[in-house]
Amino acid sequence: MRKGERKGERTRKMIVERSAEIFNTKGYFGTSMSDLVRETGLEKGGIYNHFGSKEQLALETFDLSAELVLERLEEALDGEGRVLERLVRAVEVHRTLAEGRLIHGGCPILNAAIEADDAQPALREKVQQAMNRWQDLIVRTVCEGIAIGELDPGTDPEALETVLISTIEGAVMMSKLYGDATYVHRAVNYLARYLRSLAR
Amino acid sequence: MRKGERKGERTRKMIVERSAEIFNTKGYFGTSMSDLVRETGLEKGGIYNHFGSKEQLALETFDLSAELVLERLEEALDGEGRVLERLVRAVEVHRTLAEGRLIHGGCPILNAAIEADDAQPALREKVQQAMNRWQDLIVRTVCEGIAIGELDPGTDPEALETVLISTIEGAVMMSKLYGDATYVHRAVNYLARYLRSLAR
Repeated sequence: MRKGERKGERTRKMIVERSAEIFNTKGYFGTSMSDLVRETGLEKGGIYNHFGSKEQLALETFDLSAELVLERLEEALDGEGRVLERLVRAVEVHRTLAEGRLIHGGCPILNAAIEADDAQPALREKVQQAMNRWQDLIVRTVCEGIAIGELDPGTDPEALETVLISTIEGAVMMSKLYGDATYVHRAVNYLARYLRSLAR
Repeated sequence: MRKGERKGERTRKMIVERSAEIFNTKGYFGTSMSDLVRETGLEKGGIYNHFGSKEQLALETFDLSAELVLERLEEALDGEGRVLERLVRAVEVHRTLAEGRLIHGGCPILNAAIEADDAQPALREKVQQAMNRWQDLIVRTVCEGIAIGELDPGTDPEALETVLISTIEGAVMMSKLYGDATYVHRAVNYLARYLRSLAR
């Protein structure tokens, strides 16, 4: 009994892991059951044994994919070093994403945000939670930088958070559109210079 | 015969116009035939009389929606006034988009870019063409500004074009995600200040 449960848990986890990339690439609407059958190597019934619907599976793969990005951002922003260098390192995370080295298909938060905004309330709520975490991480770091006198006290943490996230996400969109990481590299170079201009 | 042709053309145009907003809102994959039946007031067969497939209709609605945005950008960038003020006006176009006053569902170029990048080559090509036009408009205006001595000669037109487009598109994504135009307003305010800092 315990053994069967553990095996079930492992299969469930495998399904989420193997289908995360296809959902991030083809989209939550665009991914078909036959894509999932191919990616997981299971029959349709085998997938439905673990997930009530394709939507349920899609939501769980979003958690996994978003976590991949958020963990990197947390490592950068809560890591060692001066505040400005931590902010620059967080922006640099998206070079890896643009080059498809973190997960194939671009930034999962961006992809899901665009797909979910008008059409899928459950996914939209999850994306908002992921975006909230990203915003909070930056705002907290910027406030720390102001408090310890590393950043110009006139810096507006919310405005800076919006500029950092939007510039990087827009550039990921452009790089994905053209299959060319140049756009992300330009945006990261620009933001790194901008961040350093905020030193007190 | 001529009369029937004209009526056919009018019906075709009406179908594209009435379905543009639903494709921009629910996505090119997410929009169903029954959505299109409801939006156009026609039977399924009536739609298929004019378009071989849902994909064909989707592509034509993208042209219409992208044109709405590109025309505004052209008006701003090719219009009267100093180069910097024209660039600022182009960035301001997205306030209207974020507030849903131009077309419902956010920026059609952003939406289609995210949906098409990995999955739909014909749509992807159309989005690339629209994005090329946007980039060319900005680069041309920036080069003009440098040539007439209005902009700092050290300005890199390609880097500036990437920063402007990516910041604004990322901010539209955030505003759509939260249903809150604040993000676009922050990004536009920031970019307007940044642009003015490039005055020679």
